[in-house]
Amino acid sequence: MHENPQLNEHGELTHLLSTEGLSREIITRILDTAATFVGITDREVKKVPLLRGKSVFNLFFENSTRTRTTFEIAAKRLSADVLNLDITRSSTAKGETLLDTIDNLCAMHADMFVVRHAESGAPYLIAEHLRRMGLHDIHVVNAGDGRHAHPTQGLLDMYTIRHFKQAFEHLTVAIVGDILHSRVARSDIHALKTLGVPEIRAIGPQTLLPRELARLGVKVCHDMAAGIRDCDVIIMLRLQNERMNGTLLPSAGEYFRVYGLTQEKLARARPDAIVMHPGPMNRGVEIASEVADGPQAVILDQVTFGIAVRMAVMSLLAGREQTSGVRDS
Amino acid sequence: MHENPQLNEHGELTHLLSTEGLSREIITRILDTAATFVGITDREVKKVPLLRGKSVFNLFFENSTRTRTTFEIAAKRLSADVLNLDITRSSTAKGETLLDTIDNLCAMHADMFVVRHAESGAPYLIAEHLRRMGLHDIHVVNAGDGRHAHPTQGLLDMYTIRHFKQAFEHLTVAIVGDILHSRVARSDIHALKTLGVPEIRAIGPQTLLPRELARLGVKVCHDMAAGIRDCDVIIMLRLQNERMNGTLLPSAGEYFRVYGLTQEKLARARPDAIVMHPGPMNRGVEIASEVADGPQAVILDQVTFGIAVRMAVMSLLAGREQTSGVRDS
Amino acid sequence: MHENPQLNEHGELTHLLSTEGLSREIITRILDTAATFVGITDREVKKVPLLRGKSVFNLFFENSTRTRTTFEIAAKRLSADVLNLDITRSSTAKGETLLDTIDNLCAMHADMFVVRHAESGAPYLIAEHLRRMGLHDIHVVNAGDGRHAHPTQGLLDMYTIRHFKQAFEHLTVAIVGDILHSRVARSDIHALKTLGVPEIRAIGPQTLLPRELARLGVKVCHDMAAGIRDCDVIIMLRLQNERMNGTLLPSAGEYFRVYGLTQEKLARARPDAIVMHPGPMNRGVEIASEVADGPQAVILDQVTFGIAVRMAVMSLLAGREQTSGVRDS
Repeated sequence: MHENPQLNEHGELTHLLSTEGLSREIITRILDTAATFVGITDREVKKVPLLRGKSVFNLFFENSTRTRTTFEIAAKRLSADVLNLDITRSSTAKGETLLDTIDNLCAMHADMFVVRHAESGAPYLIAEHLRRMGLHDIHVVNAGDGRHAHPTQGLLDMYTIRHFKQAFEHLTVAIVGDILHSRVARSDIHALKTLGVPEIRAIGPQTLLPRELARLGVKVCHDMAAGIRDCDVIIMLRLQNERMNGTLLPSAGEYFRVYGLTQEKLARARPDAIVMHPGPMNRGVEIASEVADGPQAVILDQVTFGIAVRMAVMSLLAGREQTSGVRDS
Repeated sequence: MHENPQLNEHGELTHLLSTEGLSREIITRILDTAATFVGITDREVKKVPLLRGKSVFNLFFENSTRTRTTFEIAAKRLSADVLNLDITRSSTAKGETLLDTIDNLCAMHADMFVVRHAESGAPYLIAEHLRRMGLHDIHVVNAGDGRHAHPTQGLLDMYTIRHFKQAFEHLTVAIVGDILHSRVARSDIHALKTLGVPEIRAIGPQTLLPRELARLGVKVCHDMAAGIRDCDVIIMLRLQNERMNGTLLPSAGEYFRVYGLTQEKLARARPDAIVMHPGPMNRGVEIASEVADGPQAVILDQVTFGIAVRMAVMSLLAGREQTSGVRDS
Repeated sequence: MHENPQLNEHGELTHLLSTEGLSREIITRILDTAATFVGITDREVKKVPLLRGKSVFNLFFENSTRTRTTFEIAAKRLSADVLNLDITRSSTAKGETLLDTIDNLCAMHADMFVVRHAESGAPYLIAEHLRRMGLHDIHVVNAGDGRHAHPTQGLLDMYTIRHFKQAFEHLTVAIVGDILHSRVARSDIHALKTLGVPEIRAIGPQTLLPRELARLGVKVCHDMAAGIRDCDVIIMLRLQNERMNGTLLPSAGEYFRVYGLTQEKLARARPDAIVMHPGPMNRGVEIASEVADGPQAVILDQVTFGIAVRMAVMSLLAGREQTSGVRDS
């Protein structure tokens, strides 16, 4: 495996695989580029021609209509051609290897792969293969691999925090819930550390907090009330239904009583604390509706910024940044 | 619920939910706008840029490839970006509420939702939610909700009738078949009444005719021969296979014998009567092939006009009418 | 059935149904047109506006994500609007006849149908229907029908051979594998004969070679070593998994031992022989990885040329050839 497989030989971002290993400069550049796209979506014509003629392939080996849609919108607003491959019915299903499928799509002159896969590392495997084949103009965006990483979600979370809190240097951020299985939490933690957040807390039952948290410089907290105290940012995680089988967790009701974010628990955070959630929400499981719909929730802002962040990532990877203002298509 | 949830505070059409409650002026304006689009589809380049940069989401909670395709074509010919959400595999399937899904898509800067749902009223629920959230620039088109309404079908039927009969004031229109379960019939009846059709007849077995027909000013008729006599327009309805289970209906063959439109039965209508059908047809069940393929059938004209009517509805909702002639994109 | 249903009354190609019956002139014109598109895919903006405003419908009655994707890319690079119909969930599934579905799509002003069907002859049926209805501006491309034909694959194979071998007049071409069930083999053989290839060999077990081969002027060979000797071109066919049930074939391992293309067997061909495969490959069944990834394999070139050939076919059918160089869109 290459030293830092996300960067090309000039140290520029050529794939987005993880927030781990991204420098502060690169993250900041992505967020700054995203800021130029936030305005576009308010215009009458929401398109820019930065990726016109480029072919973006959505390769979702694990189904996720929501995430696929955000990438499809982002790519279309950049004027790319988007091709959604129904992987479960494709050649891969007919016994072709993953890399043969990739080779074929490269031969069709694909420009970008947006990859979601249940196996951690699948997007790395593809990026490494492209490097080995000398295909330096084809880019990979990890849209979630196993429990490993979901970097665009991590970046849109950073965008949201910066938007509401301006700077990272004095923040206390709590991440609450099933951190063990969460690629979102892992991507958030790496980015928060890199951007200089001094205190990151992980809150949840012992069975759902991974051991490596201490090594990552994250404070572990099993008590919700204590963990949330004086926080500036609270990131609630989705509780996967399949975890609720009794071995890792008691019932959903019991979980909500202890770790669900209610207005009462939220009162312990700073008065201007923001509440985030990657969606889709389980109301009444990890978050109360009064909080989800309350004034401190920025959950829908995350979605809006997410489109701009994905547009930023795609245009930076393609080497098609906006220069002076936004040209209309 | 708002007074007339289809209109904004200025009395302009902001959602298309039902033909019920649409004024003669609004219906006529839609039909007139559609007329400007009929020509476009005959041109070399069939696109106009009226909805360029707009994001149209097809939300089909009930599957219908045909209807979804007509909206997709209409939106693409207006140069919109179209996103088809596979709802059965989406976040809604993961337990997210319908309105949380809508909120998320709004946060992605959706401009229009085309909604089909097995539940009557679902598009109203979405429109009401948008109003409450102050999202006045996002529009809903009902593409069929339960047994309630299918307004674009109703409007394209009106377009077809006007095209072939010019005026509505002297017409006798028969609707034949399973009116009880038909949102098409309901949408047609409301529009026909508003446009001043003096005589509307509903023909079918007692089990398939709803009681409210008399209240709507529709003449009920169980005898096909009598019902069809001297009609100008005959609208045949599709017989859903699932009705043919013996409780509501005898066999398909028996149904055809009594209510299937044959050349012989059609001879009782006016010689210049037109025969309509919303498709897909069950040949030999509700309609004989000799009639479906005969000179009085205008069934494929309905399909052609349907694209133009959907283009008209979408461009009117988006406030992007064509002004003087059609600009090319 | 029309004399040559692929040609219009002026002798021009109006549908692409089979390589059988295509003259040398027409095939050469398709290949020459494809050559003008090969360069486009290397440009920054890979689009040309030749089919702007045209509506191309992918009608895949038999599922094939790979082939559908190649047509979708080709159509989008020509700037067409592409509509993928999920046929298995469409009106055809609701009991509507194939030709009623076609009539409906024609009424929506479809310009081209790309048809894959498990039944041999389905695209002919559609083309014949269009002719009978007088719809001369709507074109059919056969994307594979039953065991019968897969003409775009045949044509891209010819493009590949011409690219690497320049001329056809002195070539020996071997086709290896399950020729009995292969529409690719049939399309290749017709095109190779028309283009003047003097020696075509079919290699495979007796159960997988059809009787008509001799009639087509193809030499039948059950011995791989003898068959491959001094060949210029070797076309390996995919072995369908469903053939491996013991009645037509022994095990996959046994098949590989006898007919799988290894470096050792390949050494009997000419040193500059090229190895082709329509994909997706079964590595270790019909082809060894050392060959598939070796210097003589042109399998990914086939994929690249395939996009250009499909762009050529679509633009020729639509009567929108490039004249002097490629205009940018």
